[in-house]
Amino acid sequence: MFLAIEWTSAAFHAFLFAADGTLLGQRQEARGVNHITDGAFETALREIVGDWAAEVGRIYLSGMITSRNGWVETPYAQAPASLTDIAARTVVRHIDGLPPLVFLPGVSVRDPLPDMIRGEELKVFGAMGQSSGLVALPGAHTKWVAVKDGRIEQFATYMSGEITALLKSNSLVGKLIPAQSADNPEAFLRGVRLARDRRIGGHILRRIFSARSLVLFEDLPPADISDYLSGLMIGAEINEVIGEYNSPDKQVRLIGAPALCQRYSLALLEAGMTSTVADNAGIAAFQALRLSHAFY
Amino acid sequence: MFLAIEWTSAAFHAFLFAADGTLLGQRQEARGVNHITDGAFETALREIVGDWAAEVGRIYLSGMITSRNGWVETPYAQAPASLTDIAARTVVRHIDGLPPLVFLPGVSVRDPLPDMIRGEELKVFGAMGQSSGLVALPGAHTKWVAVKDGRIEQFATYMSGEITALLKSNSLVGKLIPAQSADNPEAFLRGVRLARDRRIGGHILRRIFSARSLVLFEDLPPADISDYLSGLMIGAEINEVIGEYNSPDKQVRLIGAPALCQRYSLALLEAGMTSTVADNAGIAAFQALRLSHAFY
Repeated sequence: MFLAIEWTSAAFHAFLFAADGTLLGQRQEARGVNHITDGAFETALREIVGDWAAEVGRIYLSGMITSRNGWVETPYAQAPASLTDIAARTVVRHIDGLPPLVFLPGVSVRDPLPDMIRGEELKVFGAMGQSSGLVALPGAHTKWVAVKDGRIEQFATYMSGEITALLKSNSLVGKLIPAQSADNPEAFLRGVRLARDRRIGGHILRRIFSARSLVLFEDLPPADISDYLSGLMIGAEINEVIGEYNSPDKQVRLIGAPALCQRYSLALLEAGMTSTVADNAGIAAFQALRLSHAFY
Repeated sequence: MFLAIEWTSAAFHAFLFAADGTLLGQRQEARGVNHITDGAFETALREIVGDWAAEVGRIYLSGMITSRNGWVETPYAQAPASLTDIAARTVVRHIDGLPPLVFLPGVSVRDPLPDMIRGEELKVFGAMGQSSGLVALPGAHTKWVAVKDGRIEQFATYMSGEITALLKSNSLVGKLIPAQSADNPEAFLRGVRLARDRRIGGHILRRIFSARSLVLFEDLPPADISDYLSGLMIGAEINEVIGEYNSPDKQVRLIGAPALCQRYSLALLEAGMTSTVADNAGIAAFQALRLSHAFY
């Protein structure tokens, strides 16, 4: 048996595997790296999965737990990087009463701008196997990753999700949003279409104010502002991705929360692209990692 | 004598003029429309300039005081709009013990997206007279206004300033900004140049994360993040303006706070455009308004 842990800034997620890669159990807690004080990572690990740790041959750790602010910092594997490159750059720690702790590296790119991922790379490998294509991991900081033959070739972080949240909660355009409103996919799509409308010059900075001006001219109901803004930002992000990758694949693999992936699917369709959602990509990656020759 | 008041969301600014347009005095207080509760605008007016009000023939009011959230809402003059069009759409109120109150309209555009200004239009008229060109009013919501022969033809609001402030104060990229740091024009220009670098695909959403990743890879000192972000956003805004106005004038008239105008000047130079700063544009507009035939 082996144990694999996705330990992000916000959460702790453990997977217990049989030696052949069969998933035997999983546990999740909201005890992310950012919630652990005084570096008490070992204590948290023992509290959450101490019983499992006693039974396994090794423990893999991935995510922000391997960053400068985590438990053991691992150097980045530089893109292009395969799962084998990841395996080759692990840092192993031995602690009394625990099986070997295998800290996995993140992946970095330096050109044309530096960027880095820690944890997402495993999901990408799990979702893509040895295939090629464009992967998106929607979230506050959406990562867009270009994969070729099972190697991460290039990627970039788009901060649209966090900026949208800031605009909704704390800006002039957010002020008119009612406290409660139902999701409206039509309002979302209206935002996406506006982001793509090339009859209007400029990009997102030129368009955001319309979330207020349309309301003042009674052309957008306040209940729709939130979805409209979300569509505007995700639509703009997809435009930028198309700009960055020049002629990207018409097919995108999505990894993330179902509701958010659904929004990206809708916006991608507007841009003439299709998408599929990868389930359990992290689990598949840990299975592949354990079974890869690099670990024997 | 006449009295003119710029009453914005944030501030109250009064100008006392002689009949021939000579400025006799001015007073400013941080009692903007947003600070007045229970609609007590008359009380505030009397408190701040009651002595002047007793001596003048009329009082002009401009800015958010004429909006739905202000004292007396005036209908927008629709662009293209001249100072004469503004004068033709004033709303006059008579209140015992005060001279006639002349509420000035704002200006709206509807196409390709609705937008509106209240107060800025007077500064634009004051700065431009009967000439033509591109005007920028830098601020949290920067307005870019195209003027032709003394008429406001088209304009748009760019929310870059507010988004930059949100990013600095409350986001992942803002977290590493030290509490105190000196202005660094080189860091600002680095951001402007990155915004303009077309070797990198995408626009602002693709670039913002570099304010964090460059720091993590020790290629940007934390003390420079704030200026770098500011340059990135103002540079992106100018790119969008160039996109919107296709081939804009190479010369831009700036109206606003000197330090911020200075930043716009630097960023415009990087884009191959020059700029001049208009001083006292609001005063010039009130003078022109009072002297225009529309008021006799």
